[in-house]
Amino acid sequence: MKKSIGAKTIIFPTPVLVIGTYDTHNKPNLMTVAWGGICCSAPPCVAISLRKATYTYNNIMEKKAFTINILSEDMVKNADYYGIVSGKNEDKFLRTNITPVKSDLIDAPYGKEFPFVLECRLLKSLEIGLHTQFIGEILDVKAEESILDKSSLPDMERLKPFSFDPATRNYFRTGKMLAKGFSIGREV
Amino acid sequence: MKKSIGAKTIIFPTPVLVIGTYDTHNKPNLMTVAWGGICCSAPPCVAISLRKATYTYNNIMEKKAFTINILSEDMVKNADYYGIVSGKNEDKFLRTNITPVKSDLIDAPYGKEFPFVLECRLLKSLEIGLHTQFIGEILDVKAEESILDKSSLPDMERLKPFSFDPATRNYFRTGKMLAKGFSIGREV
Repeated sequence: MKKSIGAKTIIFPTPVLVIGTYDTHNKPNLMTVAWGGICCSAPPCVAISLRKATYTYNNIMEKKAFTINILSEDMVKNADYYGIVSGKNEDKFLRTNITPVKSDLIDAPYGKEFPFVLECRLLKSLEIGLHTQFIGEILDVKAEESILDKSSLPDMERLKPFSFDPATRNYFRTGKMLAKGFSIGREV
Repeated sequence: MKKSIGAKTIIFPTPVLVIGTYDTHNKPNLMTVAWGGICCSAPPCVAISLRKATYTYNNIMEKKAFTINILSEDMVKNADYYGIVSGKNEDKFLRTNITPVKSDLIDAPYGKEFPFVLECRLLKSLEIGLHTQFIGEILDVKAEESILDKSSLPDMERLKPFSFDPATRNYFRTGKMLAKGFSIGREV
């Protein structure tokens, strides 16, 4: 029996995306967002949504660029911190001992210690309501060699990414492999 | 040491969203997409991206409505099947013994046997490239009572949602709770 629980912004899983930007004075900043996802295969694009009140919103508007950093389980504390505190008041790279590295492709920084990074050029921005959606074209993906498999693709067991549960606002580990995609469905 | 792996559409985790629509003859259809995510808190909105060639693309353009169904682990075979086969050729509800239920709010069906459903009214569509992004306003969320906790919020341990890995194209289980959000970051 289904029960209505109201117009809530809940899907599972929701990602934990750490956005890297520079401000007008080229101070690097990090901010965590959960509203986002891949939105086009060609050109390869990813969408993230931000409130106008955030420091990162202004940085993206100014520099037309951002990185998306995916963290491993052992850095969940960092990810949560980047979502709680504003870059207006703190140097979040410094506070968490993360080294800002300027992308060679766009005017945005990523974290040297982060295992997986997307470098994005702002393609479009769209006002929706409380949030503005930024669509970034993915110009390159950089990953620590230690998390790559033989095909140079990220290995989930090594990367150990985690997700956010918008219902309880807790972080969850990624579990074991469940099934092969574009394969198990052929049994239907 | 970071290695460039090219401009790939990879983030972790990526959701597995089963989209419910009606065609012009009111035949219900299901299609799985991985390109999507919540995109605004107020109004509550979710974005999904589809290629023009899909049956669901035309259905959404016609009916201006869709549901998003989140499935449990035990239905991974269904989710994979809905992404492999086109509704042009098959009745995917019938083939998988899922009962189409017309939403009381929008002109779209959901699966009676699916545990968690978002009912969405098309708000905007945005051409990006190969994919068109549809932004839906979430009008209601309906969930099986068996997956709800005492606060009437979905309980991840009961829902058992799974994710898609765009790198290896495999499905992964959701793991255990890792940390409390808006909390563990305060230790920094």
